[in-house]
Formats: sequence, C-alpha cells, structure tokens
Amino acid sequence: MARAIQDLSDLLSRLPGVGKRTATRLAFHLLKAKEDYARALGESISTLHERVRRCSTCANISDTDPCHICQDPGRDQRVVCVVESVPDLWAIEAAGTYRGAFHVLHGLLKPLDGIGPDDLNLDLLRERVISGEVQEVILATRPSVEGEATALLVRQLLEGTGAAMSRIASGIPHGSELEYTDARTLERALTDRREMK
Amino acid sequence: MARAIQDLSDLLSRLPGVGKRTATRLAFHLLKAKEDYARALGESISTLHERVRRCSTCANISDTDPCHICQDPGRDQRVVCVVESVPDLWAIEAAGTYRGAFHVLHGLLKPLDGIGPDDLNLDLLRERVISGEVQEVILATRPSVEGEATALLVRQLLEGTGAAMSRIASGIPHGSELEYTDARTLERALTDRREMK
Repeated sequence: MARAIQDLSDLLSRLPGVGKRTATRLAFHLLKAKEDYARALGESISTLHERVRRCSTCANISDTDPCHICQDPGRDQRVVCVVESVPDLWAIEAAGTYRGAFHVLHGLLKPLDGIGPDDLNLDLLRERVISGEVQEVILATRPSVEGEATALLVRQLLEGTGAAMSRIASGIPHGSELEYTDARTLERALTDRREMK
Repeated sequence: MARAIQDLSDLLSRLPGVGKRTATRLAFHLLKAKEDYARALGESISTLHERVRRCSTCANISDTDPCHICQDPGRDQRVVCVVESVPDLWAIEAAGTYRGAFHVLHGLLKPLDGIGPDDLNLDLLRERVISGEVQEVILATRPSVEGEATALLVRQLLEGTGAAMSRIASGIPHGSELEYTDARTLERALTDRREMK
C-alpha cells in the first residue's frame, strides 16, 4: 500500500467509530475524489482549532467572543442554563424555545475517571452568578449518576448567591411507550408527577 | 453552531457512510482532540493527491513510479493479473501467495452509467502485452455481469497477442455453507466443477 494512503489511514482510524477497514476505504475515497475537495477538507481540519473561539462568558464554542448567544440583546441573560457540553447546548438551541443564556461545564464529575470539580468550568459560573445579574440557574446536566452529582455540586457551589436554582424534568420522553420505558425512568416519572389542575 | 464547525461538518458529510449527525460528532471530536492530531490529519488529507503516484506500467497507486511491485525483481513480470481497482490489488497482495505482476483497470464496463472501454485503462495493458514480455494474463475482475463483460472485453482486446488468458475461479467461498449459498454461485460451482484425480 502506498505510504501516503497508509499514513492517512492510520490517522483516520483514530476517529471514533472508524475501524481499520473503514479508514482505508475513506483514504482511498479521498484519493479518488477531486483534489479540491481533499484540500478543502484538509484545510478545514488543520485550521479548526485556530478558527474556533471559546466564549469568555459562557464557554460556548463560537466564531466570536462573547459568543452570539451572550451578545444577543433579545435573550434573557438573567436565566442561565448549565449544560455538560456544546452539543447539549446545540440540542437545546435546535429545540428552539429556550430564550435565556447558557453556561457550558465541558464535562461532568467522574471520580472514577479522575475528573473532579477542578476539571469543570465552575469558577466562571460562580463569578457570573455572584456578579448579581443572574436570577435563575437551570441545571440541565443529563439524568444519570454523574449528571445528578454534577447538578448537586453546582447547587452547593451557588448556595447563598440568591439565584433561584432549578433542575430540568426527567421522565418518559414525548411519544414513547410506557411498555418499553426502563424501570429507572418510570420510577422517576412517578416520583416527579405533577398535580393536574 | 460555530461557522468553523459547521463548514467542517458539511465537508465531512460528503464522505461515504457519514451522515449529518456523524459529521457533526466527528467535527466536534476533532475540536476536542489535540491540535497536533487535527493538524496532522488535515495535512495528510490536503497533500494526499500530490504525495501519491500512479505507476506508469500497471497503474497501481504507489509512492514511486514504477510501483514497488513492478520494480521487484523477485516477482514474475511475465504473469499479469488484471484487477478492477487498487483495493482489489491490495486484497490479492494481502492473501500473500501471488508472485506475478498486476494491471489496474480503475473501473469496470458499466454501459448504464456511461462507462465504456475508453474509460478503462486498456491501452497501457495492450501495449504491455504486445511488447512481448507477458506470457499469461489472469482476468481477476469480480464474477458479476460487469466483471464478466469486462473480462470478455480484455480477452477480445488481447486476442492474437500470443499471451495465454485465464479467468479466476468462481464458486463457493472457503468455509461457507452450501445451505446459505446463493443460486447463481451454486450453479457456477457446479458448472465449473473440476475432475478429481
């Protein structure tokens, strides 16, 4: 096999979900594709890190600092939704109804993997809340052991700042069947039941 | 979503087997990965076309021209195995027993897709055989309508050159069960049966 193909294939196989065979197939596809395309893709990957900014307010990934959400006068900067990751932020944005601001932790507490409070983007959040502009903090980490632990940590951290704290609802997803819902979710849906008025 | 991520994601989604969601996931993975890795991968893709040579003897993809197989004095250059593609050549090389040379067609006859004899790398093969060094041509295109048509075309093209012509065997693959073998393969295996001596 040509060295250039072999090298590229080795690099590609380090991507998630790309095995050795797929990597070789992709490398060969890139060779057969137009050179312009390969060049554009290569450039895009090479320069990715330098073209992307991390917002110094909310740690979102953006083209600008502050990010477009923190800059948007149409959004309620007094409500801050705390998320694990940028893709989680994108998912909430894609849902299209949330009009507040965000804060990205860039991780969850995972003591077994050695990820502790110092590895999460917490100081920036505390400063932001202490500064007094924030009235409500919505904890939108996922409903899992790590997500709950992280939500509890953030709540403790912000205790006494005067900001209201809330947790996103967990329960049976829209459109899914009770029959196929796992026990933990059913339990949660029952415990967190709401009064019908 | 940051423009850099969006652009990269659009380019990635043009790869085979990579949908929109996977493309975004990969783009984000690249952003979280070490910058050195992203740079190496990007460079490798950008420079792929210029680092790769096509062998002027057999049309194999290689670091050198002639390719390492055409240059190898330990290989029998009088036997030429005609294959559809470079990955097919790699597969035969990986099997490890073939010690002759190759010729890569870079395609099969596909009249419905507008691929005719002029689109295949045939002239180079004819010249090579006419020059008199080649004693046997093995037609190793796949056993399909297009593969058979292409093999017939090559045979016609080389008629009268004096080179012996052969076709790779088609039949039940090693280790597979007759019960699960398709009718066409079974028919072929019966028709092409060999005498046991």
